[in-house]
Amino acid sequence: MADPNNTFDPTILPASEPCPFCTIANTYPTYDPTSPPGADSKLLDPDKAAPASFVVLSTPTLLAFLDILPLSHGHLLLCPRRHAPKLTDVDASEAAELGSYLRLLSKALVKTTGVYDWNVVQNNGAAAAQVVNHVHYHLIPRPEIRASGKLRESFTMFGRGVRSELDDDEGAALAAKLRENIKLVLDEESRKARL
Amino acid sequence: MADPNNTFDPTILPASEPCPFCTIANTYPTYDPTSPPGADSKLLDPDKAAPASFVVLSTPTLLAFLDILPLSHGHLLLCPRRHAPKLTDVDASEAAELGSYLRLLSKALVKTTGVYDWNVVQNNGAAAAQVVNHVHYHLIPRPEIRASGKLRESFTMFGRGVRSELDDDEGAALAAKLRENIKLVLDEESRKARL
Repeated sequence: MADPNNTFDPTILPASEPCPFCTIANTYPTYDPTSPPGADSKLLDPDKAAPASFVVLSTPTLLAFLDILPLSHGHLLLCPRRHAPKLTDVDASEAAELGSYLRLLSKALVKTTGVYDWNVVQNNGAAAAQVVNHVHYHLIPRPEIRASGKLRESFTMFGRGVRSELDDDEGAALAAKLRENIKLVLDEESRKARL
Repeated sequence: MADPNNTFDPTILPASEPCPFCTIANTYPTYDPTSPPGADSKLLDPDKAAPASFVVLSTPTLLAFLDILPLSHGHLLLCPRRHAPKLTDVDASEAAELGSYLRLLSKALVKTTGVYDWNVVQNNGAAAAQVVNHVHYHLIPRPEIRASGKLRESFTMFGRGVRSELDDDEGAALAAKLRENIKLVLDEESRKARL
């Protein structure tokens, strides 16, 4: 059994300097998700960061953006702004906020892609296939397998499948559409809350 | 793009009657997770449900229990008590509470298993490998791959790997240990909150 006072973690990933997700957090300012920047906004210019980053949510607590090696169209990442390696390293309010936005981003992703099936995946540590040492959830649309005829492909995950780089123009348009649909989802939520 | 007003979902799983997770929810009463029942408690007798169920958390909102076909020692499921098929079907407070308990259960799982790497996985719809039509998160410990020498096995997921049935005696002991460690994690949290 693990000693709860033992802080040595043999599986921790080597620190990458600088952390790519902290770079995104430091590059892009926060904005009100109910009033998101459009596709051509300078605020979220993808080229501000390297590699180009396509931000879909940027609050004081959380950040979401397109995966640059998507497993499918719409593959998103959601993470806390603050650096934390694993899910056990986030604080109580970050954990709850991540849980809330997994639901909201899922709604926006379905609206945006028209794909009704998706996986939520969060990897902790090298043995669990964590690659970037800053805790993040993946949201991965899964187009209907029977329609595509690619049964094996639909279960590919964790970097073992064929992942092609995100096209910059497509990324900018997709991110803007997602920001707009996140706004619509939040509008719906506040309408329901008022009823 | 999906019509947000279109409620037809071509990928929804056939309703299983009765839902196995609703059966667990209806069979086991809630208890205060800071004062959990011990291994021999009649309250959580595994044989009350069929198949035998090993409950580690039972609050008015959430339920967690051992997967009966674990991919690794400690494989847990976390779901809302109330029936909801996909993550988009839970309400705002359930989503936040799920997010909070993913962090707390992760801490308890590391304490219990001594395994520092784990995956959190949540599948929505048949194309995403959802099997039980009641939204649930998997927490799956990933023992160090180099130690086990089983690189391929550690990436097996979604029912494609060799999963062996949970042994009843082992399940009861493991569930009791998890309940006790969830209590310890909650105690730590409230101590920190008072500081």
